[in-house]
Amino acid sequence: MLKGFTVPKSPFGQAALTPPPPWHYAGDAVGVEFWADPDATAATLPRGLSPDPDSSGHAVMLFLDWQFTAQDDEYLEPARYQYREALVLVDAMYADVPVMWCPYIYVDNDAALARGWTQGFPKKMGSICQTRSFAASGPAAAPIAPGSRFGASLSAHGQRLAEACVTLRKPVEDGLSLLSRPTVLLRYFPRLVAGGQDNPAVDELAMSVTDNLTVAGAWIGTGELNFPETNGEELHALAPRRIEAGFRYSLSYSTSDLKVLEDRGS
Amino acid sequence: MLKGFTVPKSPFGQAALTPPPPWHYAGDAVGVEFWADPDATAATLPRGLSPDPDSSGHAVMLFLDWQFTAQDDEYLEPARYQYREALVLVDAMYADVPVMWCPYIYVDNDAALARGWTQGFPKKMGSICQTRSFAASGPAAAPIAPGSRFGASLSAHGQRLAEACVTLRKPVEDGLSLLSRPTVLLRYFPRLVAGGQDNPAVDELAMSVTDNLTVAGAWIGTGELNFPETNGEELHALAPRRIEAGFRYSLSYSTSDLKVLEDRGS
Amino acid sequence: MLKGFTVPKSPFGQAALTPPPPWHYAGDAVGVEFWADPDATAATLPRGLSPDPDSSGHAVMLFLDWQFTAQDDEYLEPARYQYREALVLVDAMYADVPVMWCPYIYVDNDAALARGWTQGFPKKMGSICQTRSFAASGPAAAPIAPGSRFGASLSAHGQRLAEACVTLRKPVEDGLSLLSRPTVLLRYFPRLVAGGQDNPAVDELAMSVTDNLTVAGAWIGTGELNFPETNGEELHALAPRRIEAGFRYSLSYSTSDLKVLEDRGS
Amino acid sequence: MLKGFTVPKSPFGQAALTPPPPWHYAGDAVGVEFWADPDATAATLPRGLSPDPDSSGHAVMLFLDWQFTAQDDEYLEPARYQYREALVLVDAMYADVPVMWCPYIYVDNDAALARGWTQGFPKKMGSICQTRSFAASGPAAAPIAPGSRFGASLSAHGQRLAEACVTLRKPVEDGLSLLSRPTVLLRYFPRLVAGGQDNPAVDELAMSVTDNLTVAGAWIGTGELNFPETNGEELHALAPRRIEAGFRYSLSYSTSDLKVLEDRGS
Repeated sequence: MLKGFTVPKSPFGQAALTPPPPWHYAGDAVGVEFWADPDATAATLPRGLSPDPDSSGHAVMLFLDWQFTAQDDEYLEPARYQYREALVLVDAMYADVPVMWCPYIYVDNDAALARGWTQGFPKKMGSICQTRSFAASGPAAAPIAPGSRFGASLSAHGQRLAEACVTLRKPVEDGLSLLSRPTVLLRYFPRLVAGGQDNPAVDELAMSVTDNLTVAGAWIGTGELNFPETNGEELHALAPRRIEAGFRYSLSYSTSDLKVLEDRGS
Repeated sequence: MLKGFTVPKSPFGQAALTPPPPWHYAGDAVGVEFWADPDATAATLPRGLSPDPDSSGHAVMLFLDWQFTAQDDEYLEPARYQYREALVLVDAMYADVPVMWCPYIYVDNDAALARGWTQGFPKKMGSICQTRSFAASGPAAAPIAPGSRFGASLSAHGQRLAEACVTLRKPVEDGLSLLSRPTVLLRYFPRLVAGGQDNPAVDELAMSVTDNLTVAGAWIGTGELNFPETNGEELHALAPRRIEAGFRYSLSYSTSDLKVLEDRGS
Repeated sequence: MLKGFTVPKSPFGQAALTPPPPWHYAGDAVGVEFWADPDATAATLPRGLSPDPDSSGHAVMLFLDWQFTAQDDEYLEPARYQYREALVLVDAMYADVPVMWCPYIYVDNDAALARGWTQGFPKKMGSICQTRSFAASGPAAAPIAPGSRFGASLSAHGQRLAEACVTLRKPVEDGLSLLSRPTVLLRYFPRLVAGGQDNPAVDELAMSVTDNLTVAGAWIGTGELNFPETNGEELHALAPRRIEAGFRYSLSYSTSDLKVLEDRGS
Repeated sequence: MLKGFTVPKSPFGQAALTPPPPWHYAGDAVGVEFWADPDATAATLPRGLSPDPDSSGHAVMLFLDWQFTAQDDEYLEPARYQYREALVLVDAMYADVPVMWCPYIYVDNDAALARGWTQGFPKKMGSICQTRSFAASGPAAAPIAPGSRFGASLSAHGQRLAEACVTLRKPVEDGLSLLSRPTVLLRYFPRLVAGGQDNPAVDELAMSVTDNLTVAGAWIGTGELNFPETNGEELHALAPRRIEAGFRYSLSYSTSDLKVLEDRGS
């Protein structure tokens, strides 16, 4: 009997791309809140979601340095499990519930990619970097303080997809207020059999479930954000028309469940 | 209506990890045919396959330099679509049909990973290298000739998983004879919803369908192969007990279909 | 007594970045011959070289897949020694000798970078890819034939620096004719001591010495070439104004010497 | 007149591998203090250094996450300038001054490699990872607290060279006490001209000069450290015989000078 939460299934379950849930995350986020062309954000929505009439075009670009662990001290193997991520979230409505939808997301680690697909995050591989803050002061330390700046970038296959810079202005009292909407995702797995390629094996609209979501050290300020146009990507269609704010915070949460909203697979 | 064969589904279908089939491949293979512990190869078989009584423990390790294209000249974008692969195939029976089963496979490209999952190849990310043969002669050229040697290696997350060396002895008249068994794969996609994590959304035993399979410049000879033990992998359980042969060839084929043998998903 | 041709010097000389010469190379080149702004090419020339009055602005961009070996079968360790390279060469005069000068060059391997610095190639790290030709025919194989196309690209730090595409038209009888000028390089190593930072420890104009230079399978045709503008690079100042030709060939050579033209170090 | 502190020298000085000093650094260090075979550490010493009779065999292995900046906000371009490093330092004497000597060091960034060579750090490329501490609490956060553990690893060319794990026990009052000896380095640049290959162009024993060295959040505890044997490296000769301690701290400093101890170049 083969074991493992994902492929490769193996005799001892040690070869699977990711250990089984619960999955625990801690990380640092640098991000920019912005307004894109409402037609462009609406065009990314899957069946089952509609534009939010109050905030169509509103979006957030996030760059994250993540540490992951499951039950076996995976955080002590950073070469295998530490990773970086960049994603864009756009405002949407699921029936009458305000939600965020994730059209594009990139990571630099295959375990994270496999977990993401399982959750409905449409992850591709990319190279993601952000300025960090270090405890020892000096010109390179980027302290968490008014006026401090944090750069961030996303590249894939040697092409730059996104560049951001955030300048901190003031702390946010309730950091969780920055993460108020639930995220809706599309669990999707195609068929390859001839005649079935337009008929996916899995096509589920799902809502992310996060436990113990914690935000620490949240600051807001101003932001810059640029999505250069590249082949093989459509992120640039969501290029900012207006920047709302920049922000930075640390966050942690756990995941061991998912809420299926609509199951349309066959 | 979102477009794209895989995630991310997007307004124009340009952001998907891979273009839709047909998929065309051309590449160079360096490999070693060997015998592992029959209990170890048997332990990797999924439900529906059984050990081949005539060749239990027989396996092949392959290292491949691949070029990919679909319908839009993807082969002209090597930064995005050229890739390298390493996989092990073990002899098995599907009912009374002799087949090969792929327990472990690694690639260095996310488009290849996504196609693989769709086919049932349980791909993870790795770093794969092989000695190449160049047309201009000299000490570094590795000509296709008796006594020529080709090294190959597979690493993942900074750990070496496999090392091989092949010495060519003589050409093989019918190169296709080296690829005589069809490959059986497991299309598998888990559920994350609590209570459903042991109940995969997709669990199909499938047989690979290849069109226009071509082998050129096939040579056989002797081989060396080593699977160092590493955390988070089970390849080393298939460590060679006896080497049968080494080989090298160029190959090409196309894929646009799959034969589902058993659909056990729910 | 520490051993090794380069740092790190070590008790057994096994840790050095590169084994000592002679160094042997075999590879495939895809390239574009073009004309840039003559003022821009002239501005890249070091003291001791002057623009070629007959061909000021004439340049070649090369993308190379390389295999390297020294005396210990290094070509059998492709993970450590196989590499890719992209460089630009511009026409110049050393006194009355027509030469090529290499202002910018990128590799994806530290052994190649160390050898390069020693020779006077100002190598930085980059990601380089080229379409390959495979012996097994099919839509992905890119045969060496009229009309065949080869793409190539160079990126560094997640930014695209160069993109090329070559279409083959006809074989070149004398492939060596494509490599008729010697290459002049600048061996340069700075001082860090305060007060000496403008006074390099090594500042030598040198001419590359290649043994047994062999070209095989040379074809010429048409080419496209683009140098996107990026921070931290000056390659884009050499952007093509006119394309002369595209080409592709295999080449090999050995190196174990260098001709110092001018030694201006202190 | 070409500009730039290192190669490539260019018309505007923007293409050089690294901007000129002063160079500013901030980072996090995870490390292990240990005792190796005294003959092995002595064998790594260059001419001009001798074993420390009081601590022969004493060494420190450090894993560092670094942020770099010079005068142009380089810390806002993490894709180009942020990097990771692993190095080993062994006790030695320069005349009657107790010093540390750096036989082996690895980074994942070419700007850092170029600065290192200029200083006398014999840098090669590697992949370095360490467990990080995040401000938002949870199972993946690794707080700075008694019992917290931090893993670290170094790989090069797909082979693991070092693995460490540190368990924090208690804060260190004077973090600078962990960095009490100056570091001695070998600035070395070979000649390639035939007949001169044993006669380096630069061969200087130098002492590192650091300004504004700051240590914050220093903790000590216990440590584990392992140097697997690999081809092409000699680090494993320094394998720990006894572990003294583990530690973790943040540090920052600036560099704009170097003290040349002995200049033996020709």
